[in-house]
Amino acid sequence: MGVIGVVATMKVQAGKEAEFEKVFKDLQSKVKANEPGCLQYDLCKSKSNPQTFVIMEQYESQEALDAHGKSDYFKAAFPALGAVLDGAPGLEFLDRID
Amino acid sequence: MGVIGVVATMKVQAGKEAEFEKVFKDLQSKVKANEPGCLQYDLCKSKSNPQTFVIMEQYESQEALDAHGKSDYFKAAFPALGAVLDGAPGLEFLDRID
Repeated sequence: MGVIGVVATMKVQAGKEAEFEKVFKDLQSKVKANEPGCLQYDLCKSKSNPQTFVIMEQYESQEALDAHGKSDYFKAAFPALGAVLDGAPGLEFLDRID
Repeated sequence: MGVIGVVATMKVQAGKEAEFEKVFKDLQSKVKANEPGCLQYDLCKSKSNPQTFVIMEQYESQEALDAHGKSDYFKAAFPALGAVLDGAPGLEFLDRID
């Protein structure tokens, strides 16, 4: 199996954008420090809708993606992110074609 | 201005997946050979819908994104891609937050 991509789309409540960015960037720093199998974990903001954020992710394997979701820091960030989101994240799981 | 991300979602007509991949990978090789300002141009296929492809793209500047769209090989690939797509591509333009 090859590289796995994830495009996660998150709509944030109006006025909560800065709080979302703060919580997410703390999570991002922990992912980059602890997950060599995470090849990409980029936070992006929509140009057309400032409340919509998109995370572009890639993992070297399904095991690396599973480890990402099971980490203590990921589980800890979830309630803080959930508190500022407007609805559930949209998750698209992908196989990269090399 | 910082890095620009693009998530392009393309639904391909049933039975045309291999043709789409062939045309896209030829375009991808030309992008990688000619566009130093294109930082990422990854073709991915949805795990949940085998007719849905997602291209994860990043450009170092708006100028690099503009140059991408104006290249002769991009313009040449467009009719061939359009012939196998099921509807217009979905394009999300993003600012990467570093």
